[in-house]
Amino acid sequence: MSTENPPRPAGACQPRRPRADRARQVADVLRQQVLSEVYGPRPLPHEEVLAEEFGESRNTIREALDLLRTEGLVRRVPGSGTLVVAEKVPHGLNRLMGLAETLHEHGEVTNEVRSFGPVRAPGPVARRLRLPDGADVVYVERVRRLNGLPLSLDLTYLAPDIGAALDAEDLVHQDVFQLIEEVAGQPLGSADITLEAVNADAHSATVLEVPRGGALLMLERLTTLADGRPVDLEYVRFRGDRITMQGRLLRSAL
Amino acid sequence: MSTENPPRPAGACQPRRPRADRARQVADVLRQQVLSEVYGPRPLPHEEVLAEEFGESRNTIREALDLLRTEGLVRRVPGSGTLVVAEKVPHGLNRLMGLAETLHEHGEVTNEVRSFGPVRAPGPVARRLRLPDGADVVYVERVRRLNGLPLSLDLTYLAPDIGAALDAEDLVHQDVFQLIEEVAGQPLGSADITLEAVNADAHSATVLEVPRGGALLMLERLTTLADGRPVDLEYVRFRGDRITMQGRLLRSAL
Repeated sequence: MSTENPPRPAGACQPRRPRADRARQVADVLRQQVLSEVYGPRPLPHEEVLAEEFGESRNTIREALDLLRTEGLVRRVPGSGTLVVAEKVPHGLNRLMGLAETLHEHGEVTNEVRSFGPVRAPGPVARRLRLPDGADVVYVERVRRLNGLPLSLDLTYLAPDIGAALDAEDLVHQDVFQLIEEVAGQPLGSADITLEAVNADAHSATVLEVPRGGALLMLERLTTLADGRPVDLEYVRFRGDRITMQGRLLRSAL
Repeated sequence: MSTENPPRPAGACQPRRPRADRARQVADVLRQQVLSEVYGPRPLPHEEVLAEEFGESRNTIREALDLLRTEGLVRRVPGSGTLVVAEKVPHGLNRLMGLAETLHEHGEVTNEVRSFGPVRAPGPVARRLRLPDGADVVYVERVRRLNGLPLSLDLTYLAPDIGAALDAEDLVHQDVFQLIEEVAGQPLGSADITLEAVNADAHSATVLEVPRGGALLMLERLTTLADGRPVDLEYVRFRGDRITMQGRLLRSAL
């Protein structure tokens, strides 16, 4: 029996599919295994084991592993096989949480404050924060690191009364969410979010230490206090190779 | 007054920031305006109007518009200014919905079925669907289009009893979710999702008609019936330039 053409399962009726299609199919299942740390620090199973598991040829398995390698999820080590090198951490999508809060099990979040101070709000920012045209807001720009490695670049506009009560020192080790709740004396209420995948422009790539064009998860988030007042408008670029967003959706309306 | 150095707002105390930082800051606010269709079919305001609005120089505004142009969100038309060309549609993140269901206001979703039929489930797929090792599942691969343009590439594994009741014809015009609910005689319950940003590999880029390396929003989703049985495991690559995910997060646990 050739390993190049393993028997198709009983009942399969579709014509032979291109190897690239089958490699992607295998890679997608493996990438989820890698991300959910099924393989942990152990190497992935040998090619022949995966070939048997997936009912595919070794060439297809090799092509699937190449896809994961190109993504930076695994690495080939001569003599040791294929090792997981992914360092993606899961950001919760079900509750509104700050970065340090959602990642507390994964390490220490520190923030490099690149800019901090009052600015005149551009019209669209003033309107989202329900401030009069031309009002001041406090602008904060941070590179956020997890265990020292860049994770995201956050551009934040804060309502003036909230922002004025903060100082740059607080922002180095604390989530803005936590600081807002302290200053406002009430919890946050909710946030409207928009997620996108974008390619890193040259300048953002440099700041985040990724190749130009690297995939970023872009988050726009308008956060309100419990009393409904919008106080925090953020534009966040997460490194695509370092974060996943995880949550549960319900079929019925809440 | 030079337009290159507009006065800083009163109270600003940070040192002059690099133009690339300021251009990104402007671009982020504008991109959200573009995506929320504030400018609709009208051109964006003139550079000098934007310069005034943002308190920035025209050179900074031009650099911000360049960022949006590189992303494919706007286009410069001599004599007409900067026009919106973004065709991003919002996918709901708050309720579990199929693509045609969530995008019904935006046009017609059609599906090209690239593969459809029973296959032996790889171990990780069998385990997620709570099937015995070596069980058959039904594999469906579709390119999904909105108004004829590719939107996503979906790789789907269905529980055998559900999948066996479908035929490829049904899949061309209907969401899998709708078909599952018809076959199962009960609504879906919930789905566990993982979202990532990845760069398109060469083969997926071809299928989705994007440049190699283009940013994709990758979704892994395990969907259960109302009775809790997992029946549908999907790996979906959305074109980053065509979709956003939108939802509301609450601060308090539900």
